[in-house]
Amino acid sequence: MNALDIDSEMNLVNNEIELVLKSKDEKMQEILDWVVSTKGKQLRPKMMLWTYHYQDIKVDDQILKYAAAIEIVHIASLVHDDVIDDGKVRRGKESVQSKYGKKMAVYAGDYMIFSLFESLYSIADENYSFIIESLNDVCYGELSQNANLYNLDISKDEYIKNIYGKTAVAFEVACKAGAVGAKLKAEEISAFSNYGKNFGILFQVRDDLLDLQNNSSEKTGFIDFAEGIYTLPIIIVANNAEAKETLRLLSNDLKNGESTLKQTQKNLINVLCKYEWKKVFFNIVDEYYEDAKKSLCYLQECDTVTYFKNILDKIKKDIYEYTEGITNM
Amino acid sequence: MNALDIDSEMNLVNNEIELVLKSKDEKMQEILDWVVSTKGKQLRPKMMLWTYHYQDIKVDDQILKYAAAIEIVHIASLVHDDVIDDGKVRRGKESVQSKYGKKMAVYAGDYMIFSLFESLYSIADENYSFIIESLNDVCYGELSQNANLYNLDISKDEYIKNIYGKTAVAFEVACKAGAVGAKLKAEEISAFSNYGKNFGILFQVRDDLLDLQNNSSEKTGFIDFAEGIYTLPIIIVANNAEAKETLRLLSNDLKNGESTLKQTQKNLINVLCKYEWKKVFFNIVDEYYEDAKKSLCYLQECDTVTYFKNILDKIKKDIYEYTEGITNM
Repeated sequence: MNALDIDSEMNLVNNEIELVLKSKDEKMQEILDWVVSTKGKQLRPKMMLWTYHYQDIKVDDQILKYAAAIEIVHIASLVHDDVIDDGKVRRGKESVQSKYGKKMAVYAGDYMIFSLFESLYSIADENYSFIIESLNDVCYGELSQNANLYNLDISKDEYIKNIYGKTAVAFEVACKAGAVGAKLKAEEISAFSNYGKNFGILFQVRDDLLDLQNNSSEKTGFIDFAEGIYTLPIIIVANNAEAKETLRLLSNDLKNGESTLKQTQKNLINVLCKYEWKKVFFNIVDEYYEDAKKSLCYLQECDTVTYFKNILDKIKKDIYEYTEGITNM
Repeated sequence: MNALDIDSEMNLVNNEIELVLKSKDEKMQEILDWVVSTKGKQLRPKMMLWTYHYQDIKVDDQILKYAAAIEIVHIASLVHDDVIDDGKVRRGKESVQSKYGKKMAVYAGDYMIFSLFESLYSIADENYSFIIESLNDVCYGELSQNANLYNLDISKDEYIKNIYGKTAVAFEVACKAGAVGAKLKAEEISAFSNYGKNFGILFQVRDDLLDLQNNSSEKTGFIDFAEGIYTLPIIIVANNAEAKETLRLLSNDLKNGESTLKQTQKNLINVLCKYEWKKVFFNIVDEYYEDAKKSLCYLQECDTVTYFKNILDKIKKDIYEYTEGITNM
């Protein structure tokens, strides 16, 4: 199994996604087509397929349906997230809520969830029930983050718990589903799941850095701090009482309109630099990187493991580079 | 099986609903408790149980789970409807979106849907797959209504199609599920389904009248016309070209702020009276009433059939009374 084979299987997954996201209502179909027409990196189903092909077996209908399902849950949650955050742009295109209105965006998200259930119900298999059970964890991550808005006392562990639910659980489930589908041994399933979880955490840590940097093409940038979502760099620095006070003032000034977003971003980065967050940050990143890598050691060398090593190294490299790029402004 | 037995089984259904709507997140649990604390009439699960007990069999876990599921879908859709319509009051209490914010209301609806699916996935049974397949019809009804806003050319058949998806399909599914669960004969299943469908249509027709009357305790009243949702009385009258023109003017004046809601309501009712809608209206109501009643004729006399006859007669009586109460203002 090589990258080209996975790409051709991803075409089958995308066919399945289109098959599931059908509606007899013209307007709804237009929205579904709009959402599906711009694909993201589709990492979750891709990682599921790579895990599945750890063994030399052929892809079957069931695994394709689950791979499609995990991507559809992701897409539906983005559509509802944009309703909640009033997001105008998604994957470089106008968001559903902006283009078709909030009403249609709420229905479209619901419709996608119902459609994927219909698809999964027809092949329900208790071995896969963990996928369904994980769906509420995804909600839980957002809720838990929500409960900690503007909380400078949030601990690193609470932050990790939030991003686990918000992001990492989906990667964990994707890897586990591939492993379960391929009927791997219990310790292999657990190794892949653990890899997925740690990879997912680093994935979100990188995403959070991009927001801080404000050069992401996905978002308009520097949204998290303004919305009271304090990410790892800030949590590290807030460990210092003096720095915490400064951060609180920055946040208040922004809320009260006494400082612009641009000015706040500059000041924030200066605070981060002053209190030397990078060493602690790299230690935490290394911890999750090593944990993910250790999981791969339980597995035999093969294309799947090479792929997982490569994307893990890439994400670590990105995090290091983005971090180094954050300097006094 | 009598009404008291059904009530005690409804307690089991409500226990099941509470069991499904559990969250480890405190805030989410508070919202779920808030939603569940005020029960509506719970007609859908109740009708499912009555149908199930057409035969002398004991209730089992499966039927209780499906009865809970059909009520949860209903509750979740109300929570999302309030997000869409900015509804402040639901069942005489503050709505979720008003009390906890739109963000939490979107998540809460999603959470309920995921939770019920988790519950159903564990007992997936292809005999019940029609329930899952019907979920998108519920969405479709709302969409179809949405596509016909401010459309005075909408036909009676299109109106019926809309309210079928929006309301009647849930009653049809509830009755069918009870019949399938009790392993009734094909023609009995079809009789109960058909009863549910026709009952559901009359249920929505009555609800629409209440909105016109503006004495509903559920809603603030007279919302439909203002939002461009034209219900059966209006569709009947709009069949007359002159009346249609008057209705168009009424609608425009309201939209432009040239007439108040109160004044529009008064004028609208005068238009309805002038063009003698009641006879046509009663004919249509009678048609669905007779269709529902005919279904019951295929079935043996028993407590279930008596119950269904009674609620059908009650709804027809309500419709007639409410209609007679609509007179020149």
